[in-house]
Amino acid sequence: METKIQELNLKALFLGSKGENVDLFKELLLKMVDEHVGWRQNYQPQDLPVITPQDKSSKSFMETADYMRSIFNVLSSRLRTDSIPWHSAGRFWGHMNAETLMPAIIAYTAAMLWNGNNVAYESSPGTSQMEEEVGHDFAALMSYEKDKSWGHICADGSIANIEGLWYARNMKSLPLAIKEVVPELVQGKSEWQLLNMSTEEILNILDQVPEKLDEIKSHSARSGENLQKLGKWLIPQTKHYSWLKAADIIGTGLDCVESIDVDHNYRMDISKLETKIRELASKQIPILGVVGVIGTTEEGQVDHIDKIIALRKKLAKEGIYFYIHVDAAYGGYARAIFLDENNQFIDYNKLDEVYARHHVFTEKIEWLTEDIYNAFKAMSQVESITIDPHKMGYIPYAAGGIAIKDIRMRDVISYFATYVFEKGADIPALLGAYILEGSKAGATAAAVWTAHKVMPLNVTGYGKLIGASIEGAYRFYHFLQGRQFKVGAKTINVYPLTKPDFNMVDYVFNEEGNTDLAKMNRLNHDFFDQASYVKGGIYMNEFLTSHTDFAVPDYGHSPLQYVKSLGFSEDEWMKEGKITVLRAAALSPYAHDKEVFNEYAPKIEKAMKEKLEVIYMQAQAE
Amino acid sequence: METKIQELNLKALFLGSKGENVDLFKELLLKMVDEHVGWRQNYQPQDLPVITPQDKSSKSFMETADYMRSIFNVLSSRLRTDSIPWHSAGRFWGHMNAETLMPAIIAYTAAMLWNGNNVAYESSPGTSQMEEEVGHDFAALMSYEKDKSWGHICADGSIANIEGLWYARNMKSLPLAIKEVVPELVQGKSEWQLLNMSTEEILNILDQVPEKLDEIKSHSARSGENLQKLGKWLIPQTKHYSWLKAADIIGTGLDCVESIDVDHNYRMDISKLETKIRELASKQIPILGVVGVIGTTEEGQVDHIDKIIALRKKLAKEGIYFYIHVDAAYGGYARAIFLDENNQFIDYNKLDEVYARHHVFTEKIEWLTEDIYNAFKAMSQVESITIDPHKMGYIPYAAGGIAIKDIRMRDVISYFATYVFEKGADIPALLGAYILEGSKAGATAAAVWTAHKVMPLNVTGYGKLIGASIEGAYRFYHFLQGRQFKVGAKTINVYPLTKPDFNMVDYVFNEEGNTDLAKMNRLNHDFFDQASYVKGGIYMNEFLTSHTDFAVPDYGHSPLQYVKSLGFSEDEWMKEGKITVLRAAALSPYAHDKEVFNEYAPKIEKAMKEKLEVIYMQAQAE
Repeated sequence: METKIQELNLKALFLGSKGENVDLFKELLLKMVDEHVGWRQNYQPQDLPVITPQDKSSKSFMETADYMRSIFNVLSSRLRTDSIPWHSAGRFWGHMNAETLMPAIIAYTAAMLWNGNNVAYESSPGTSQMEEEVGHDFAALMSYEKDKSWGHICADGSIANIEGLWYARNMKSLPLAIKEVVPELVQGKSEWQLLNMSTEEILNILDQVPEKLDEIKSHSARSGENLQKLGKWLIPQTKHYSWLKAADIIGTGLDCVESIDVDHNYRMDISKLETKIRELASKQIPILGVVGVIGTTEEGQVDHIDKIIALRKKLAKEGIYFYIHVDAAYGGYARAIFLDENNQFIDYNKLDEVYARHHVFTEKIEWLTEDIYNAFKAMSQVESITIDPHKMGYIPYAAGGIAIKDIRMRDVISYFATYVFEKGADIPALLGAYILEGSKAGATAAAVWTAHKVMPLNVTGYGKLIGASIEGAYRFYHFLQGRQFKVGAKTINVYPLTKPDFNMVDYVFNEEGNTDLAKMNRLNHDFFDQASYVKGGIYMNEFLTSHTDFAVPDYGHSPLQYVKSLGFSEDEWMKEGKITVLRAAALSPYAHDKEVFNEYAPKIEKAMKEKLEVIYMQAQAE
Repeated sequence: METKIQELNLKALFLGSKGENVDLFKELLLKMVDEHVGWRQNYQPQDLPVITPQDKSSKSFMETADYMRSIFNVLSSRLRTDSIPWHSAGRFWGHMNAETLMPAIIAYTAAMLWNGNNVAYESSPGTSQMEEEVGHDFAALMSYEKDKSWGHICADGSIANIEGLWYARNMKSLPLAIKEVVPELVQGKSEWQLLNMSTEEILNILDQVPEKLDEIKSHSARSGENLQKLGKWLIPQTKHYSWLKAADIIGTGLDCVESIDVDHNYRMDISKLETKIRELASKQIPILGVVGVIGTTEEGQVDHIDKIIALRKKLAKEGIYFYIHVDAAYGGYARAIFLDENNQFIDYNKLDEVYARHHVFTEKIEWLTEDIYNAFKAMSQVESITIDPHKMGYIPYAAGGIAIKDIRMRDVISYFATYVFEKGADIPALLGAYILEGSKAGATAAAVWTAHKVMPLNVTGYGKLIGASIEGAYRFYHFLQGRQFKVGAKTINVYPLTKPDFNMVDYVFNEEGNTDLAKMNRLNHDFFDQASYVKGGIYMNEFLTSHTDFAVPDYGHSPLQYVKSLGFSEDEWMKEGKITVLRAAALSPYAHDKEVFNEYAPKIEKAMKEKLEVIYMQAQAE
């Protein structure tokens, strides 16, 4: 019998900053181990154990067990020496990591004992079913239409992005293939028109000739032909290296990638996107697709997906069409904060009321703007979306994912006819034929499935956790704003980069009066060294963060406004060509709590001050 | 302090067919959980717990915990209902699966608590180091030269295969790029010569111009140019769909894939390979590369890697060169059975002596031939090799891997200059820039590392386990040979497909006197339905197997000799065009034991007979 719950308490869902819930963790872990062992014992109970009491008393058995124990001592020591304390409720403000959901960890371990392989239904009936449900969860989270959309788990966001580009490449090439195989279906269309057909139009044509599908596919980009005709793949200037890798791997190549400038909020500049598209179109160069990002890797910023959609609608009237993939590896789960109890996208003016009802925030914060809201809302209109459970899903690595708006797209990249789908079940008999990967852990599906069951993908579940992380980010953001450190005779100021669109806070330290950008960059790099694995002794470190560089080759001059606001001249920027910033992804499920944050704030301040003192002392000594 | 061990007892390393080692399993699991929790508690012990006793006594906490418990009841029920009993010591003879190594399961769980992300050293110092060690383990297993080779963990074998093709594609294109950027280094070479340069020659040229590397790379296939010039990718006729997918994804396309016939032992026909290469060369079509398989997916057969190498040497004198990738996803770990205590490849005539010393087999079996030995030996000479820990490494899903002979190759596909390597450590600071994937579980590295530590990749460790699986396969093979079932008035005979090169046994049932191939195929398909998830109630099923079809489009006429040996005419084969075979990957770590096998043999026989009876009864009823 399944049950319902009134209101989730997030504190019951994590092992805890100090392992507070270890008893609950062990209870469930051992329950699952015991139930698994019971299952083994009772599968054909007439079969006797093959490992006998005599075996277990033998010298070689005992020596082997001891040997294994000794290896676990080494493993434990190495993990304890060289791991990062993400779990800390207030001292880790760096990478996109935190402690992960207890139900996910336990479900993973449990399912690992059964070791299903979700590549094929027959080697994992239970966990394949779970992955199918998880895929539909992803689609529902994006407000994709039920029964017409699909999704699945990927190894990670890079794989999901490659898959997205693979979809786009093969889709874009199909009209050329249709023209070769059944020209009457695209009669009268020029090559330019063929390369500007919408995804829906193409899929509708394919629906008319199911018997020709395989032949058409064999003439598509999968053949190796026409890759250079498909046009440009437009990505934000902050281009994550995974997109370059994806274009390399997928064979359209780096030369097909063009980057679109971001504004000083690190969001893609939509007017520049339009200019670029028009410029390409004027040269008869098609647009393979456009990538929008929900939660940029280095800043957590949110692209105007709604404006990209609006632009596509506008340009469609001029015969220009492009595929849209949203890279929401980071921010995808955050869409849960906009879905009500019934998974409906909440009206903007009702949000406060809903948030109050479900205690999404402990205090009113000034995070949300209509910009951000509209961007999330428009995700339902793009072809495919990357979403990583191992980021804001609080699932252990490795668990990425992808959702596609139109389930028919999967036949465009598949390797078998539709008969390898189970009748009725609508679960692929061979999932590996429909996705980039082959063998994959059923355990991952069990982990994500369990997390989704415990925490619905709406404001009653994940929305609360996402809310907590955003509130925590804003506490840290306000903590940093205007903060000053006195180090000897020097005054060091802290400057956050932007008002966060999501839960990431970038910031720099700068010495008061300093107008030498290189010097500021050194200071922040030195700070990172002090606040990371670099100096060793991670476990003794009282404050940990991460860092990144915004350099002209990747960022253009988008950081200039910020750089100037710190008192540097444009010449300085031109000379140095980059700014080193510290970077805090605020994922802790605890730091939103005022009391918790206030307990840690003076500790963070003290640790920061000590690190700055060490840096200045060392600089003097040199 | 680390210890050594005289001789491993495999029975101490698995949870056990009936969960016999559950106490040892729990001991180590809880030790690792406790040591992790201790680590959390003692990271900055002055910080108080954030989940308080009052929190834990609150109504919402208790309700949430109960809710989570109820979800775990659902999870447990679903896993127990719809999972496959791979763990059985004698009733599961199907997919490439068995129970996995206890140390790997526990290490995975333990490391998952720390949740390192091996994409970057700084987010996983401990597990990144482990992955580096595992990569070198892979390379050493292949007898690649120490310090000059490399390897890493992949999500699965499909990803490793795509990566292998990615390497081959970009390597092959480099001479054209060199010609564009530094033409003097390839002066006087025709395009044909450029496209037939050896991997070593190309890497040596790149070594001369490190400052030009990035520019040369930007002119390589990663740009998207020249993909159609690179020639054909030759794979065995049994072509696994993952190779078609790989060619599609990597952009060289399906049209670049040519298949080479296999012989009646399902090994690539090397004379046909030579003919194909010469035919292509005569048309000035280069060979992008050749794939050899160690352990074919459907038959477990072993290609003549040594002969492919010999052919390459011969053709090199005629100016023809091709990249070789070995797909040893399945059979890679089996190379451990040929390495002595010092990881040296054992002389053929010393094998018996070494096997006796390490108790690799319990009885003399007629498995090994020089063919197989030579194929494994020659693996050290190919450019790259796929090897899956989650297959013969007995590691839980998902854990694939790849080894490359020349570590310099990784710079050919990388996205950052070498400065992102840690000084001295030789571990990439950003592994994600050198491989296909991005984020990846540190836990996988910990699982594989722990397994490799407990069981060295030679005859003292994995070699014993591989030996057990081969011996088990041969017991099953002999069990099937000549077996007959009386079902009513009918006699049903069993025929194994080939003498296994490894640990897979394919077989068919045929009614005595039957000369209708379609009828035999129906019988075997019906048998599979009875011996799999298809009829439901997996848990009640007393014998489980898997099946596959060898059809003309994939297999050509390689099954003909076997089909004829069963008494079917060539006409029958031409008419039906396929043969349905049952397929048993024998991975159990127990079934090699004569007593164990003999205990199960009558149970298997009885279960087979009952299934056949059901099939014939149903056929009559229809």
